[in-house]
Amino acid sequence: MKILILNGPNLNLTGIRETSIYGVSTFGELLRSLQSAYPDVEFIYYQSNIEGELIDKLHEFGFSVAGIIFNAGAYSHTSVALGDAVRAIKAPVIEVHLSNVFARESYRHVSHISPWVKGYICGFGLYGYMLAAESLIRNFQLPQTNV
Amino acid sequence: MKILILNGPNLNLTGIRETSIYGVSTFGELLRSLQSAYPDVEFIYYQSNIEGELIDKLHEFGFSVAGIIFNAGAYSHTSVALGDAVRAIKAPVIEVHLSNVFARESYRHVSHISPWVKGYICGFGLYGYMLAAESLIRNFQLPQTNV
Amino acid sequence: MKILILNGPNLNLTGIRETSIYGVSTFGELLRSLQSAYPDVEFIYYQSNIEGELIDKLHEFGFSVAGIIFNAGAYSHTSVALGDAVRAIKAPVIEVHLSNVFARESYRHVSHISPWVKGYICGFGLYGYMLAAESLIRNFQLPQTNV
Amino acid sequence: MKILILNGPNLNLTGIRETSIYGVSTFGELLRSLQSAYPDVEFIYYQSNIEGELIDKLHEFGFSVAGIIFNAGAYSHTSVALGDAVRAIKAPVIEVHLSNVFARESYRHVSHISPWVKGYICGFGLYGYMLAAESLIRNFQLPQTNV
Amino acid sequence: MKILILNGPNLNLTGIRETSIYGVSTFGELLRSLQSAYPDVEFIYYQSNIEGELIDKLHEFGFSVAGIIFNAGAYSHTSVALGDAVRAIKAPVIEVHLSNVFARESYRHVSHISPWVKGYICGFGLYGYMLAAESLIRNFQLPQTNV
Amino acid sequence: MKILILNGPNLNLTGIRETSIYGVSTFGELLRSLQSAYPDVEFIYYQSNIEGELIDKLHEFGFSVAGIIFNAGAYSHTSVALGDAVRAIKAPVIEVHLSNVFARESYRHVSHISPWVKGYICGFGLYGYMLAAESLIRNFQLPQTNV
Amino acid sequence: MKILILNGPNLNLTGIRETSIYGVSTFGELLRSLQSAYPDVEFIYYQSNIEGELIDKLHEFGFSVAGIIFNAGAYSHTSVALGDAVRAIKAPVIEVHLSNVFARESYRHVSHISPWVKGYICGFGLYGYMLAAESLIRNFQLPQTNV
Amino acid sequence: MKILILNGPNLNLTGIRETSIYGVSTFGELLRSLQSAYPDVEFIYYQSNIEGELIDKLHEFGFSVAGIIFNAGAYSHTSVALGDAVRAIKAPVIEVHLSNVFARESYRHVSHISPWVKGYICGFGLYGYMLAAESLIRNFQLPQTNV
Amino acid sequence: MKILILNGPNLNLTGIRETSIYGVSTFGELLRSLQSAYPDVEFIYYQSNIEGELIDKLHEFGFSVAGIIFNAGAYSHTSVALGDAVRAIKAPVIEVHLSNVFARESYRHVSHISPWVKGYICGFGLYGYMLAAESLIRNFQLPQTNV
Amino acid sequence: MKILILNGPNLNLTGIRETSIYGVSTFGELLRSLQSAYPDVEFIYYQSNIEGELIDKLHEFGFSVAGIIFNAGAYSHTSVALGDAVRAIKAPVIEVHLSNVFARESYRHVSHISPWVKGYICGFGLYGYMLAAESLIRNFQLPQTNV
Amino acid sequence: MKILILNGPNLNLTGIRETSIYGVSTFGELLRSLQSAYPDVEFIYYQSNIEGELIDKLHEFGFSVAGIIFNAGAYSHTSVALGDAVRAIKAPVIEVHLSNVFARESYRHVSHISPWVKGYICGFGLYGYMLAAESLIRNFQLPQTNV
Amino acid sequence: MKILILNGPNLNLTGIRETSIYGVSTFGELLRSLQSAYPDVEFIYYQSNIEGELIDKLHEFGFSVAGIIFNAGAYSHTSVALGDAVRAIKAPVIEVHLSNVFARESYRHVSHISPWVKGYICGFGLYGYMLAAESLIRNFQLPQTNV
Repeated sequence: MKILILNGPNLNLTGIRETSIYGVSTFGELLRSLQSAYPDVEFIYYQSNIEGELIDKLHEFGFSVAGIIFNAGAYSHTSVALGDAVRAIKAPVIEVHLSNVFARESYRHVSHISPWVKGYICGFGLYGYMLAAESLIRNFQLPQTNV
Repeated sequence: MKILILNGPNLNLTGIRETSIYGVSTFGELLRSLQSAYPDVEFIYYQSNIEGELIDKLHEFGFSVAGIIFNAGAYSHTSVALGDAVRAIKAPVIEVHLSNVFARESYRHVSHISPWVKGYICGFGLYGYMLAAESLIRNFQLPQTNV
Repeated sequence: MKILILNGPNLNLTGIRETSIYGVSTFGELLRSLQSAYPDVEFIYYQSNIEGELIDKLHEFGFSVAGIIFNAGAYSHTSVALGDAVRAIKAPVIEVHLSNVFARESYRHVSHISPWVKGYICGFGLYGYMLAAESLIRNFQLPQTNV
Repeated sequence: MKILILNGPNLNLTGIRETSIYGVSTFGELLRSLQSAYPDVEFIYYQSNIEGELIDKLHEFGFSVAGIIFNAGAYSHTSVALGDAVRAIKAPVIEVHLSNVFARESYRHVSHISPWVKGYICGFGLYGYMLAAESLIRNFQLPQTNV
Repeated sequence: MKILILNGPNLNLTGIRETSIYGVSTFGELLRSLQSAYPDVEFIYYQSNIEGELIDKLHEFGFSVAGIIFNAGAYSHTSVALGDAVRAIKAPVIEVHLSNVFARESYRHVSHISPWVKGYICGFGLYGYMLAAESLIRNFQLPQTNV
Repeated sequence: MKILILNGPNLNLTGIRETSIYGVSTFGELLRSLQSAYPDVEFIYYQSNIEGELIDKLHEFGFSVAGIIFNAGAYSHTSVALGDAVRAIKAPVIEVHLSNVFARESYRHVSHISPWVKGYICGFGLYGYMLAAESLIRNFQLPQTNV
Repeated sequence: MKILILNGPNLNLTGIRETSIYGVSTFGELLRSLQSAYPDVEFIYYQSNIEGELIDKLHEFGFSVAGIIFNAGAYSHTSVALGDAVRAIKAPVIEVHLSNVFARESYRHVSHISPWVKGYICGFGLYGYMLAAESLIRNFQLPQTNV
Repeated sequence: MKILILNGPNLNLTGIRETSIYGVSTFGELLRSLQSAYPDVEFIYYQSNIEGELIDKLHEFGFSVAGIIFNAGAYSHTSVALGDAVRAIKAPVIEVHLSNVFARESYRHVSHISPWVKGYICGFGLYGYMLAAESLIRNFQLPQTNV
Repeated sequence: MKILILNGPNLNLTGIRETSIYGVSTFGELLRSLQSAYPDVEFIYYQSNIEGELIDKLHEFGFSVAGIIFNAGAYSHTSVALGDAVRAIKAPVIEVHLSNVFARESYRHVSHISPWVKGYICGFGLYGYMLAAESLIRNFQLPQTNV
Repeated sequence: MKILILNGPNLNLTGIRETSIYGVSTFGELLRSLQSAYPDVEFIYYQSNIEGELIDKLHEFGFSVAGIIFNAGAYSHTSVALGDAVRAIKAPVIEVHLSNVFARESYRHVSHISPWVKGYICGFGLYGYMLAAESLIRNFQLPQTNV
Repeated sequence: MKILILNGPNLNLTGIRETSIYGVSTFGELLRSLQSAYPDVEFIYYQSNIEGELIDKLHEFGFSVAGIIFNAGAYSHTSVALGDAVRAIKAPVIEVHLSNVFARESYRHVSHISPWVKGYICGFGLYGYMLAAESLIRNFQLPQTNV
Repeated sequence: MKILILNGPNLNLTGIRETSIYGVSTFGELLRSLQSAYPDVEFIYYQSNIEGELIDKLHEFGFSVAGIIFNAGAYSHTSVALGDAVRAIKAPVIEVHLSNVFARESYRHVSHISPWVKGYICGFGLYGYMLAAESLIRNFQLPQTNV
């Protein structure tokens, strides 16, 4: 089972820039945590500041992986093309944002990607990727209860 | 450790109305799953169709519980008063919506509550409450890795 | 055959407040007229100034009565939750307003309920409820003609 | 007693076009039903696709008939001139639309005519004309009750 | 020298409808006054409630008369086509409105015709046509002074 | 002489929540001050987080008391129904807000209640209620001067 | 095989008005070219400045011809009724504009007709009618290739 | 009989600035023409670039002169205070603009003064002041005709 | 202790213009009342119709007086510069309007000054200045109670 | 004679994604058809998901080829930079869209490229490229007729 | 060579008000620096809080000086009249703002003056006047290089 | 000391495209002038049409150079991601535009970058880069004066 983690512009600076907002952890730590928690899943990580390369990756993986965790960063708010790409592919996409975008500038409240995703998570920092991964792996099922 | 699950208008119909959108599971099943998964946590459940009663509950529990999972339903989009209540209390609030509200009518894209919450989750159905509970219990921490 | 007549905020003042706009007749007179005209139909009347209690009544009756005549008053213009409730139930709903709302303030031209109703009537005063009742009882049929 | 039924653009296709929305009955059937139900009333029927001819008819009949049932079709949403004509005449006008316009495109929610009408009815199909005729003939009175 | 006076919808009711706004004089009186004041000018009068017939008249006279006094009534606010017609012809056009449209509903503040006219006059009642005629005949010139 | 002091949502938290904005005094202290300053006036105090209960109280007292001091809190900005209730009653209403709402979020600049009140006071904290009471008792009169 | 070419307001002036924008060719020349290129097709030409007559023609031909080439001129931007007529008929419609409307005033960028057409062509002058005719005759097929 | 001609900002440059728009005549010439045409009328001329001084002049003359010809220049589009002043005084005001403001930037289409004036004239250059003076002197009357 | 009363455009007409709105009392009477009620306070009164002179006065007194009662009239709704001036000075400013501006035109609902004031009072006529003076002198304190 | 066919984001998926909208043909087939129909023309094909690479290609070919057929996909609706590039080059550009964008989401109705193109074609699927090629090769000329 | 430095409302407080935003330097220091740097240029300094006096100064100097450095302060955002004045004069104008207006309230992002200026500089504090002066003196030329 | 000059889309055409707007000088000439004027400063020049490559360069240089002169061209108006990158880095950024963007299309008046820059300069052509460089090198200081 493969999951693509796809990050957009400026996310390569996570842990460096504006740490009061985004925290000091890095995606390297996140990936080690994910791999440790789900040793049977193959996590593929890709980051680019170029909008079209994100589209390329969605095309490349969007017909084969079990799910995509996608943080398009600021392109979320401006890119109709990325939304079209998410709509065109087959794999379920979970949209993630590190910060609570609704507590920030109003132009961050709009996402051209969210109409086409399966689920949306924001405000949990890097931990949001953990939640997204868990939801894809458990396939949105409630855990079995004894009753 | 106590967690309040607070549901707003029309959510008492979940599992009955428009099952193609909201699914056939009920909050009874969800609570059993939650209690089974986290036997040490006390979950308090409350639903009301009356806006002011939701405010009352936020006041009543908002200074004592470890966290609140709040789905204000349609009041999310119209109630400044509920947003004020969330802002006024101390407990961290996770906003949850069953459906992907961004794939629906545009007036559902706005929430007066979300600027004041710690995290926001939508589109996962009842499973979203599981993710919210997990995030409150783990306190947004990345799991420990061996490295 | 049962029909629910459901009235929202401030309609308990009808016949008292602003009689130049709303007239001097009361809902008591209306109900007597309706019962007299349709003795075989059971009319249930409920009024509340509390939005959530109107939702409760829609849930309670919305799966059993033959139709609902609903005047949500000013909540029509602000309540997404009432619109959701109308959408969720099975009974056909006829929206009624006493005055011609289109001749008044522009914020009264919008109704969150009307997209989900079967029919919409305004400007006829209390007589509009008579038209609504008739349409529910006759089920929108043209009367038989000799041809 | 005379009543003018005035229909605007495309309504000559009723019963032919988009029957899933507008039904298969025609205005011929409606007129026979009306005449049968109210044999003492003279109903005058006129339809035109030309905005100015509708204005001409409002001028011609608007100072003599007992009432006008007016469905201006799509001109309702764009014609200030028709609204001016309705305002200028003496006869009471009831605005009718076949479909529930509030469940359709947002540009159909606005009518330049409705601020000047006595009553507004939509969503009942051809039956709405029956309700409108009844309201004009009974002059908006509640039926007498035994009490 | 010929001048076309072209009137749009509902202006045939002038002197009859809403006399508190439009006054009791009629265009017949206006024409006699004009002819009396300027006996050498040929005034052509045309009124229609049909938008396209107004376009036809602009085409027919717009390349030969010395000027056009045009009151498009409510079509002023909605008709791009009439604006195009005014733009296409050669004769100078003076736009006239009886009432002060800026003191009325906001949708009357916009005119699709005014960008293409030579001059604009409103609020003077029928007398505005006198001013318009004078301006066309004197060709916008200041009268000669003794100095 | 009776005066109703009516408080809306979240105002029960005054003195507890966000004290940097709202101060640490409570309505209990305010009432003691008012009673002490005007011993002949009967002050009735009511607070509710439920919109419809505020309407109920306006109906109950609005035809008998000498005046109402009304702080509808966040409902001021969203409730057309409360505005309708204020318009329907006879008693003069003074709208009060603790903070200077114009220095806060733009959605707090709009009030559906203010068009129907006799006076509006904001930004003075609890002291604003004192000013409102004084204006009602003195009936908006200038104090007598020796001149 | 029949094709209707339907032209709206002011297009009768083509070749006369504003030739720097619209060119000096006329529809007479266009029709001769079309007939010469497709001798087996019967081309019907109709132009009117009256909105309702265009609706009449759409009704008359819209259930029998193989296709309609429609340039509604300025009515494109204001007429919901023409859009309804295009939607109601069966024949495929190709919308054509002589000029590149997107390089002109912003109110020309909106068309109430285009949501219901099969194809849209603008900016090619009279040649755009040639492209439209070709597309209808070839039925949107790619020409056969040797491969 | 006295008439005030009141000019606002930048109009002192008329005949100097942007002569392609405003022409080369000056207000000196206009005044001589007016005085010559109406020797019995006293024309008072005042120009200021200071908004408040225009208000002062409206106050000073607004209760005594027979009429005011007012060109507020660019203040027309931004000054609520000038509109209030025009509303407060008794003398009838004719608003004049040299150019056809509707053919210019959209912010010039709005005037805070026009709702309160008796008549509005634009596009005639300095000649518009002649028309305005004539309308005040003749008191909006149609000239006597022989009939 | 000094308090500046600063009045903006058209307020010199108070008691003269539109007395049905503004009443017949004048600022002279108000000042005598104030001086009589608070003999130890020095009241400075200044009125100007010129925006910049109001700024000058705010600068001149804004660093020395105990408070400013400011009614900027119509400049409230258009002047960013006055708002900047209020923000720049040290003295607390109470904004006052004679009428309930929220019951009037919508452009009067916006004030560029109110975000920077300490308190806001409207709708009380001249009496609002009394309330404002009282609040400055008592420094927003609740009066002492016996408890 | 050279013609550049330039395709933007996601168009590499044509024939694969959402075939109910875009059809099953591919650009390979289109090119073979074009080459077959116009053997003397050299067609250059380029597709990229990267906005800046599309700009690069416009720069590279825009000063030498006979024409460009440009489908910028979703970048049409968001990219001012591509519009600037089209404006800067010399070659005529024909804008093409596969689907009828006016029947889709409103944000697809706007194109930053269309103001600068020579012609605009949408709704014809791949066949639209054939029409565009033909128009460039024939240079917008009407075919010769025998008359 | 003469250069006018023209400052608008509140700028006389520079160095006094809100020094965290505007700094502690004053225009006296700036002028000494400018005079020292460019001893051959005559700098004329004028500040006023009165909009119309700024217009007067633009008229007085706008046809004779070599350039104008203009900081209209808050009037930039509201004054069409100042924009008209800048447009009317001959001297090149450089618009300067002390702070980065784009990082402040949105109503400061709009300037009615900037469309008519030669250059625009903001965010550099008083140093921006130095840059503006330099650009006027060097006449926008690149310095000569040895190559 | 290092300064990065970063240019966005289409700026590689400067001196070639639309020379009436942008002039005929090139960035090669500019760089020679800069190097000649400030021989001790190292200027790094980079241009790309690809949004993401501009982000890469801001990341690469933004933590080490003394300042960045950034002309993002058309991306200024659409790219939130570039704004985020400018905000994230440490080096001060001066935004430059060749033309006076405020005199062009309104969509060029908005910049997502300007809220985060230290200074903003437009309208000076290539000379604006000289001013920007000077401001960075002199560190926004007023030159020393003898006083």
